[in-house]
Amino acid sequence: MTDGLEFNVLAVDCEARAGRLVTAHGGIDTPCFMPVGTSATVKAMTPEMLVKAGAQMVLGNTYHLMLRPGAETVKQMGGLHRLMNWPHPILTDSGGYQIHSLARLRKLNENGVTFKSHIDGSLHQLTPESCMETQSLLGTDIAMALDECTGYPADVEVAEESMNLTTKWALRCREAFVSSPGRGVFGIVQGGMYAHLRQESAAALKKIGFDGYAVGGLSVGESRSERVEMTQVTSSLLPMEKPRYLMGVGKPLDIIDAVECGIDMFDCVLPTRSGRNGQAFTQWGVVNLRNARHKTDQQPLDSHCPCPTCTGYCRAYLHHLVKAREILGAMLLTWHNLYYYQDLMKRLRNAVIGGTFAAVADELRARFSWV
Amino acid sequence: MTDGLEFNVLAVDCEARAGRLVTAHGGIDTPCFMPVGTSATVKAMTPEMLVKAGAQMVLGNTYHLMLRPGAETVKQMGGLHRLMNWPHPILTDSGGYQIHSLARLRKLNENGVTFKSHIDGSLHQLTPESCMETQSLLGTDIAMALDECTGYPADVEVAEESMNLTTKWALRCREAFVSSPGRGVFGIVQGGMYAHLRQESAAALKKIGFDGYAVGGLSVGESRSERVEMTQVTSSLLPMEKPRYLMGVGKPLDIIDAVECGIDMFDCVLPTRSGRNGQAFTQWGVVNLRNARHKTDQQPLDSHCPCPTCTGYCRAYLHHLVKAREILGAMLLTWHNLYYYQDLMKRLRNAVIGGTFAAVADELRARFSWV
Repeated sequence: MTDGLEFNVLAVDCEARAGRLVTAHGGIDTPCFMPVGTSATVKAMTPEMLVKAGAQMVLGNTYHLMLRPGAETVKQMGGLHRLMNWPHPILTDSGGYQIHSLARLRKLNENGVTFKSHIDGSLHQLTPESCMETQSLLGTDIAMALDECTGYPADVEVAEESMNLTTKWALRCREAFVSSPGRGVFGIVQGGMYAHLRQESAAALKKIGFDGYAVGGLSVGESRSERVEMTQVTSSLLPMEKPRYLMGVGKPLDIIDAVECGIDMFDCVLPTRSGRNGQAFTQWGVVNLRNARHKTDQQPLDSHCPCPTCTGYCRAYLHHLVKAREILGAMLLTWHNLYYYQDLMKRLRNAVIGGTFAAVADELRARFSWV
Repeated sequence: MTDGLEFNVLAVDCEARAGRLVTAHGGIDTPCFMPVGTSATVKAMTPEMLVKAGAQMVLGNTYHLMLRPGAETVKQMGGLHRLMNWPHPILTDSGGYQIHSLARLRKLNENGVTFKSHIDGSLHQLTPESCMETQSLLGTDIAMALDECTGYPADVEVAEESMNLTTKWALRCREAFVSSPGRGVFGIVQGGMYAHLRQESAAALKKIGFDGYAVGGLSVGESRSERVEMTQVTSSLLPMEKPRYLMGVGKPLDIIDAVECGIDMFDCVLPTRSGRNGQAFTQWGVVNLRNARHKTDQQPLDSHCPCPTCTGYCRAYLHHLVKAREILGAMLLTWHNLYYYQDLMKRLRNAVIGGTFAAVADELRARFSWV
């Protein structure tokens, strides 16, 4: 295996792609969905449960992990894979977005960003170089370049300045990243809702040359059409032979839209967070298990779903667990939701391979009652 | 299979017994420990995890289940086994102890007890007859007779009156209980810390004739020697050929003491509650995972323990999960603690069968640093 990641596009249908990404910790079928394992755990799941849900790769949050338990501690414990007993691929984000959304007293300059921990108020700094070092200590398979996430809405001047800073940081990240077999670094395209900035950003990152490319700064409050447009504009400029990752997206419909634009990778807290809040994804839409109509419903969440939750438990039981605030409620709903997301990715992938993407996407979209 | 439970004592060593109890939902090796599944779930565990921990039978709380989701609802959903996806044996308590400790505005007379739900303040009544009916609706394998749990400390007059009420209720429960193959009802010995009352209670229940006998009203604040004395006095009066159950006990040392007195069955929230509070049971005592000394400890909780937690995760990770209040921390610590308890029961059982009970009990006791 040579340095960096191996990625093969196996089929293309319209713009949608089916591929295979290979890392130091194994391969992933794309398009793929990565469950979010913020603090070195996908909330309420054991690794065994994740595998049963069909997950092949998880995401770790650099911001959370550098604060607790600390990147040096993770390294000392044998790395993130060993620590969380997840021998499969891991992607870590750069921490940029979390600093933007969670940290206090953020001070940003060209060198990097200084911030106060939301946990204990301690002061920390992240530069492009320390960001690569931190992710290397975590032992990630895919590191993300440090970016500055542009807010929404943002004037074109603000978006441009932010995008330019992200480009400068991207170059420093690429230079600081130490390549090894099966490990790579992705650049992040920014540019707000401005197509020309997205194009400029994508071109600059492509010139630097990354193992993959991410679309950042979406799912921040924009409309669906803005999101699709920005994804499409960006995706079309990225190299065919590298994986494309739409960060923090999203709802099932958003994922279908983005796969249609040629995106290969996704992550989102939605299936896990919804599970902890008593909500379940089904082929007909979102089901709220708090609702009293489930009190004596002997049916599973989805009678066609072969997941451990649907094959073992009825809605009445899930309603009871959610009402009684039982941990098992969060476990079973998260399990089902992750299975649902992984199953969606498999359907989309098989549709690309079978050359039926447009029809399958239309059929999936038509079913949702909660667009 | 004839009506009632099948129980065979396979070996006796000193007073300790090894047996096999067979119910409508399968058999249990005794002495056994039943994890507590208060609201139709052993907190933070899937049934699959329980089986991996070695559990053969769980306990359900009638008080909690009659209030939520309601015994009629449980019946309508196919019974407790089906509802919680636990096809193995279940014992339900009578609700007496929980009314005593949780409910508000308790009014007690010879007919039964009226109380307000701690969940929504609604008014409920439990009589010996309705208690049997409720447990039958739940579909339990072993029902417990309604008792009045004597407080601690209690004057001899109070303890005697309480014991006499329990005896009267026991007779009504026995008469109301509808026997079927593999299902039985246990009487509960009361009498506070008074040996003569315990003897009187045991004799009266024996005369009524139950499928098994429980020792109630212990682990309520008494000293270890009082507990052992009451257990011994009671146990020695119970019929050899029926299972004996010490309710709500206890710490590993208490369990060793009680098995030595001839007790066959146990339940306690300790392993599950401790797990959710960041505490783990090991052969050397209780480990508090909140403690900073575990921050960079690469060792498992117990390097000799083959449980999923000890074979997959280091103390540093468990410390991290507990500090970050992650659900997985509760899951992994509960899993280990239940495995620990089940393993303890197996060791005690094997010691009885091998005729080495005294030596094994002494060895286990000597190891604990937290007597």
